[in-house]
Amino acid sequence: MTTSTWINRGFTAPFTATGISALVPPPPWHYAGWLLNVAFSFAPECAWPLLPPALGRVVGRGCVHFADWQACTDGHELLDPVLAQYRETIVVLEIERPDGSHCMYCPAIWVDQDISLLRGLLQGWPKKIGSTYLTRSLPLAHPAAAPLRVGTRLGASLAVKERRLIDAQATLSGENGKPLGFLSLPTLGAVGWADLRRPQQMPEPLLVRPDIRDRVHSDWHAATATLQLHPHPGEDIGCLGDIEAGEASAGWVGITVAGARDADG
Amino acid sequence: MTTSTWINRGFTAPFTATGISALVPPPPWHYAGWLLNVAFSFAPECAWPLLPPALGRVVGRGCVHFADWQACTDGHELLDPVLAQYRETIVVLEIERPDGSHCMYCPAIWVDQDISLLRGLLQGWPKKIGSTYLTRSLPLAHPAAAPLRVGTRLGASLAVKERRLIDAQATLSGENGKPLGFLSLPTLGAVGWADLRRPQQMPEPLLVRPDIRDRVHSDWHAATATLQLHPHPGEDIGCLGDIEAGEASAGWVGITVAGARDADG
Amino acid sequence: MTTSTWINRGFTAPFTATGISALVPPPPWHYAGWLLNVAFSFAPECAWPLLPPALGRVVGRGCVHFADWQACTDGHELLDPVLAQYRETIVVLEIERPDGSHCMYCPAIWVDQDISLLRGLLQGWPKKIGSTYLTRSLPLAHPAAAPLRVGTRLGASLAVKERRLIDAQATLSGENGKPLGFLSLPTLGAVGWADLRRPQQMPEPLLVRPDIRDRVHSDWHAATATLQLHPHPGEDIGCLGDIEAGEASAGWVGITVAGARDADG
Amino acid sequence: MTTSTWINRGFTAPFTATGISALVPPPPWHYAGWLLNVAFSFAPECAWPLLPPALGRVVGRGCVHFADWQACTDGHELLDPVLAQYRETIVVLEIERPDGSHCMYCPAIWVDQDISLLRGLLQGWPKKIGSTYLTRSLPLAHPAAAPLRVGTRLGASLAVKERRLIDAQATLSGENGKPLGFLSLPTLGAVGWADLRRPQQMPEPLLVRPDIRDRVHSDWHAATATLQLHPHPGEDIGCLGDIEAGEASAGWVGITVAGARDADG
Repeated sequence: MTTSTWINRGFTAPFTATGISALVPPPPWHYAGWLLNVAFSFAPECAWPLLPPALGRVVGRGCVHFADWQACTDGHELLDPVLAQYRETIVVLEIERPDGSHCMYCPAIWVDQDISLLRGLLQGWPKKIGSTYLTRSLPLAHPAAAPLRVGTRLGASLAVKERRLIDAQATLSGENGKPLGFLSLPTLGAVGWADLRRPQQMPEPLLVRPDIRDRVHSDWHAATATLQLHPHPGEDIGCLGDIEAGEASAGWVGITVAGARDADG
Repeated sequence: MTTSTWINRGFTAPFTATGISALVPPPPWHYAGWLLNVAFSFAPECAWPLLPPALGRVVGRGCVHFADWQACTDGHELLDPVLAQYRETIVVLEIERPDGSHCMYCPAIWVDQDISLLRGLLQGWPKKIGSTYLTRSLPLAHPAAAPLRVGTRLGASLAVKERRLIDAQATLSGENGKPLGFLSLPTLGAVGWADLRRPQQMPEPLLVRPDIRDRVHSDWHAATATLQLHPHPGEDIGCLGDIEAGEASAGWVGITVAGARDADG
Repeated sequence: MTTSTWINRGFTAPFTATGISALVPPPPWHYAGWLLNVAFSFAPECAWPLLPPALGRVVGRGCVHFADWQACTDGHELLDPVLAQYRETIVVLEIERPDGSHCMYCPAIWVDQDISLLRGLLQGWPKKIGSTYLTRSLPLAHPAAAPLRVGTRLGASLAVKERRLIDAQATLSGENGKPLGFLSLPTLGAVGWADLRRPQQMPEPLLVRPDIRDRVHSDWHAATATLQLHPHPGEDIGCLGDIEAGEASAGWVGITVAGARDADG
Repeated sequence: MTTSTWINRGFTAPFTATGISALVPPPPWHYAGWLLNVAFSFAPECAWPLLPPALGRVVGRGCVHFADWQACTDGHELLDPVLAQYRETIVVLEIERPDGSHCMYCPAIWVDQDISLLRGLLQGWPKKIGSTYLTRSLPLAHPAAAPLRVGTRLGASLAVKERRLIDAQATLSGENGKPLGFLSLPTLGAVGWADLRRPQQMPEPLLVRPDIRDRVHSDWHAATATLQLHPHPGEDIGCLGDIEAGEASAGWVGITVAGARDADG
């Protein structure tokens, strides 16, 4: 084989002729995870720094998702699960689009693994590294198992750069819950890449919508919840001010992402 | 309150009058987790460096457990799960005691969290820090969910001090599996504490058996498995030489530890 | 070699006939590191939960040390530095002993590595896992180098279980500084091990003093500093209340620990 | 302030009107660090998968840099050093450009922090997360200090996804060393971003050269070194085959990056 056959086979850096090193392979990307979803309300006028006004009107509702994921492409990642597993905290805000439809927009998200970080940036989910913990519900009647039954309590937390940023606690009500946040509405993101050749120019992000296929989920288990947003010098999600926890739910979801489309495409 | 009322309320260091800072509170300790258990066989004569001959005869069977735990005392840890969750890899070897009974002995175990590390040392489980990954089985029919059904493949790995030490891969057979390793027999450990006032003297470890109560478990799901033990300059588990994977099983277990007893008590 | 020759050669668990796996080898232990030391004052009556009254009278002075260490025994750790390097935050409080002499006592310390954690517990330094960051001073005139000259600013932080616990900032004055805290006075610690066979009994800690040899240090560089202690649900160091930063200094120190003695020995 | 004033002030995601959350602020970016540089040689025909043939002719020389960095923009990062510090391992290969000039190209690099990861991708340094350890030389005569004098030994290692990938050991010769690798020649990188709207299309990377200003360095300390490249399923740097360590050096360097230019600009 000669160098004349060199074709980049890396979907992301490093770009090589084998593609083996590329941090992220091309989609489809399969995700399955355990989620705690806590809806919240806030004063809509507070959110303006977080999203372009062209997106539409902020309605004053949002959701924090704490997620414990397993992801794969062809499945080899499940045999070496350091490649598959990560936890993340996702914030989405509900928007009324100019055409009257509703969607979600993701202004902030933190994950604990590089593959997911870059995959997120490509989808317009603005991932940074953060550390999420989330109580799991195990199918056992035991004090440490947090089983899916009325009265079970779950906790979740996010720390970013060594500071606690978000905490939540939830109590299962024993009733059926709802899919909330990005599980309930199409979710838009902003993709953009700075160009160091023009180092003082901010990117003009492109609004995209992931192309989601093959969604499956368990029952959603309803919960009452509390939610705290702590001050943080490196985050502007605190501009939302006092947020009030609303409905909450927990359960498992599986999603396959095949690509993305223009937000209005 | 005056200093004359000072009583140490720390079960472990730091020792203070509040006990708040103590890394480990007194038992009972409740654990619930998802486990992949891979039994193995080896040449019994290889194991002698790993355990005191007074324990009994090494029969040439052992088990590696990869575990994704949640642990608590009064339950507050489940509301702030950084206190509750950890992963670990456990090696146990089967012994025929001088009285003809069989038990397990734990010569090596690695965990990713301090609370569990110290709790382990107190029980004679010789924990060091190591990083375990373990595919989870989620109750979804989805490519990333590894559901509990025939043909599903699971992976597990342990890295210690930046080197991969153990890998396993398992395929669910769809049949009922067995509890293996420490789930099948009482398990002994060696507790000992060096005394820096006699810095060249090795401790004489005390053999103990945890006092386990309230064990519950899900069905065990049988699997075929492969198991690799990689060379490592800081570990002597490699003295077992070629190990051969045998039966394997996966499932959930809940245990409560109330204390410990002398091994022969 | 037969099993009849089995002798435990592990100074700490795991206890094996090779001693290879033992987390901590016997002393001497050599440490060298870069430290930021910030002295502080507090109301002496606040400290009573933190130390046994028999130690003596709390004088209302203490020190926080942020340290970036390299440690070794026979030197092999410096060739595989994952074995050698760690960071820690140390709190010491000054005591007037019943005999009128002064010493320090360590009621709280956090480190990011297992070898150091256990080595600390053996010395009566009550280590738990925590994450320390500390600006380094590099011998370059560059905006990112924080060189040792008047006006250079340094920062330091400690996070424990995902929460920021201590922050400090310091500005070098260009003057000679002092050794502070454990660098200025003998330092006592409390060693104790819970016995799970008596699970509700708190240990009675033994007060010891490390046997330190071969101390070397660079010049100490004086600084003015600020120090913040944040509330934390799992730590009782906050009982000190408002603390006020005093003198500060930065520099390098090397220490060899050969063992320990009874505090009054 | 109204939403009509919304301007993206984020240089990287998240894109917000404050820019506070953006993971990476615009350059200039200042870096200062301690580096161990190990040059190596290899069979030039092995390297073809790693770089586009249009870059020029691979000459069979390269360098691995192990680096312990501190980075900042306006300096606030040095006051909260979790924002400033990281370690990384850099591989560069020497190229003879079509015009006969020589340069370096970076086909692989691993870092332990998100800010640096994204900053790298923007410069064409194809960073992924990896864990680097590197013995530091402290200005003390002490067994743990590895001072800068003849005979001192240093170690370095890189682990990626729980597997050791590169190890090096070096012994200082007491002689003056050279700047090697990216410290000796301009270094090119490949910038590219996959577009999820065309999910099966690989990016066509742009070759760029960082615009470096204000470089300072200490003396370089020469060393003899060994270098090992271990097999890794997720990396293709192993295609280089047997590599042979050549010259090595250690020292401190400070660099300021102001932007980037086209490789041939």
